[in-house]
Amino acid sequence: MFEEGTSLKAKYGAEKVYDFSLGNPNIEPPEKFKKALKKTITDSTANFHAYMPNTGYPDVRASVADYLRGEQKTNICGDDIIMTCGAAGAINVILKAILDPADEVIAPAPFFVEYNFYVTNHGGILKTVPSKEDFTLDINAMRDAITSKTKAVIINSPNNPTGQVYSEKSLIDLGLLLKSAGEKYNRTIYIISDEPYRKIVYDGLKLPSVFNCYSESFITTSYSKDLSIPGERIGYIAVSPEASFKDKLLQGMALANRILGFVNAPALMQRVIGSIQGASVDISAYARKRDILCDGLAACGYEFIKPAGAFYLFPKTPIDDVEFVGLLQKELILTVPGSGFGRPGHLRIAFCVNDDTIINSMPGFKKVMMEVNNRHTK
Amino acid sequence: MFEEGTSLKAKYGAEKVYDFSLGNPNIEPPEKFKKALKKTITDSTANFHAYMPNTGYPDVRASVADYLRGEQKTNICGDDIIMTCGAAGAINVILKAILDPADEVIAPAPFFVEYNFYVTNHGGILKTVPSKEDFTLDINAMRDAITSKTKAVIINSPNNPTGQVYSEKSLIDLGLLLKSAGEKYNRTIYIISDEPYRKIVYDGLKLPSVFNCYSESFITTSYSKDLSIPGERIGYIAVSPEASFKDKLLQGMALANRILGFVNAPALMQRVIGSIQGASVDISAYARKRDILCDGLAACGYEFIKPAGAFYLFPKTPIDDVEFVGLLQKELILTVPGSGFGRPGHLRIAFCVNDDTIINSMPGFKKVMMEVNNRHTK
Repeated sequence: MFEEGTSLKAKYGAEKVYDFSLGNPNIEPPEKFKKALKKTITDSTANFHAYMPNTGYPDVRASVADYLRGEQKTNICGDDIIMTCGAAGAINVILKAILDPADEVIAPAPFFVEYNFYVTNHGGILKTVPSKEDFTLDINAMRDAITSKTKAVIINSPNNPTGQVYSEKSLIDLGLLLKSAGEKYNRTIYIISDEPYRKIVYDGLKLPSVFNCYSESFITTSYSKDLSIPGERIGYIAVSPEASFKDKLLQGMALANRILGFVNAPALMQRVIGSIQGASVDISAYARKRDILCDGLAACGYEFIKPAGAFYLFPKTPIDDVEFVGLLQKELILTVPGSGFGRPGHLRIAFCVNDDTIINSMPGFKKVMMEVNNRHTK
Repeated sequence: MFEEGTSLKAKYGAEKVYDFSLGNPNIEPPEKFKKALKKTITDSTANFHAYMPNTGYPDVRASVADYLRGEQKTNICGDDIIMTCGAAGAINVILKAILDPADEVIAPAPFFVEYNFYVTNHGGILKTVPSKEDFTLDINAMRDAITSKTKAVIINSPNNPTGQVYSEKSLIDLGLLLKSAGEKYNRTIYIISDEPYRKIVYDGLKLPSVFNCYSESFITTSYSKDLSIPGERIGYIAVSPEASFKDKLLQGMALANRILGFVNAPALMQRVIGSIQGASVDISAYARKRDILCDGLAACGYEFIKPAGAFYLFPKTPIDDVEFVGLLQKELILTVPGSGFGRPGHLRIAFCVNDDTIINSMPGFKKVMMEVNNRHTK
């Protein structure tokens, strides 16, 4: 997608191409980040760029835990944190540590398509379960998908590609389901809660903490989206302080971080984010983009669930999604078919772009919808 | 090892513990690196910390290729380079791209112990083959180890843990062997040449380029050792411009970089190293440490091959290596048994430490050798 956007922009001019295909934040990192980066590199500590323990700098891990204690009302400490190369690194480290061959991991669909690769990397099998029509969790469908091989459920809230968030009640219900299934099959079934968009929520929404809903759980996250630094590969794993095998999990994940070739999260970025816990870009800018996009598309006849978080909109397509995305591309509007996320009949619009890109794309979005509607009425 | 050193230092005081257990460079990064880092963060380019293609910034890859063209007299271009999270990331990316289940990878022993994990991560099997008494390549032993499942040979020159380097003739012989074995079994057998210590060589030695010895080859490396920045996780893969399936390999590795969870090499560090190609710490400082250590240990009766590169010495132990390392540890001298590297009867001493650590450890090294010798003469 990255390369396709680049080549179209080279051909038609960047301002003529409306690229909604990538979750690459266009808002600059906050001043707090830039100041912290400047300050950190003038730190004269010896061995500043040297190896540290595979889990990360102890003071950075403590600083992350301090923030989580306040934000999630959880009794976590630095030892429960492992700094990682982004959330992608985090999830791979967890899966390497917990999966046995042919273990199954369940994900509600639509889902972030990389999960399939991550599970396969470590000998597991991803089973997707449709979420409800409004993209909230379908606990009954999940119950039907659990087998004696289920090792984990991976959830992503706020969600990529839908922008939906999961309620505290649904997390508690999921936890109860996994507890009872775990007892039935005599094994621990984990929740991996992938939360890189946690700070990007709208309308004053408060997100629940998975740790307070289910003890056998992990949080994975990164600073890619909320600080606009996805190229830097910095994130972490937090293990529930109540997890039954916490010490073994932490040892296994420290080893996995090393042997998968990550070794440790990048040193300089660890120090930077350690000093600005809680910082984020101006979320109201994303709220504004969401509103411009939703209002515009609603007026053109698109149907969608208004995103509660993240910077994705996942409208329905009136015809086959791949065909519809192809029609939009002829208008130089780049989006991704829902079938790529395990939910055909939709398309993903990443609205982490300039306001003008959204505004100027509207005639194209309208034209394609009208064409398709005219076809149907002929 | 990291944690053990830390705990002994806390107990006895840092200056009383002689920690030779880790390849964690103690020399500060060069001024050139520090200046480039300062300059890079003042760059006002928009989307500075954003995603870039999974292979890295095109201009950084071109800059790496420019350097390699001059240093290795090879006709490489930026498209043949993939920026990675260190050499550990690089090797995992290659193995993910080339290994089929149960494929075999051969490594001369002693060997960097992580290779075993890396090969296993991707469903392969590591077969070690003893190198010669002086730690140079034993081509005949390698010939005997090749089977119809052999997919690659991984070599490391200058070598960890021995400091040995492989001659151009031995690389040409290895290439001829793999070419003929590849023809016999109708498959491509690759050389992965892992070269993070390439710039750390002594006595004016010039290293050969594997690309000029065998076309089906990769170079993996990092800036960890020569710039003293192992915590930053920055390195690269170079593919031989003559490799038969170069385009497929590059596509496969770009995908592997993404799906293994690395996504891309850290953005800021890419830009920094792109601007200072060829820079390194003062290698003469390591040469001095090598000489102090070798002269001191020779005088105490230790037998060893003087390292031609890297910052490791791999002396013989007169008794079982684990026992000998245990005796040294009682003198607060931390080293690693050769059996950990697939070569019992030796120990690894990492001399990337302060000169004083080397000098002040000598009484301990001497005491243990005398004790052991006295035992034998009783």
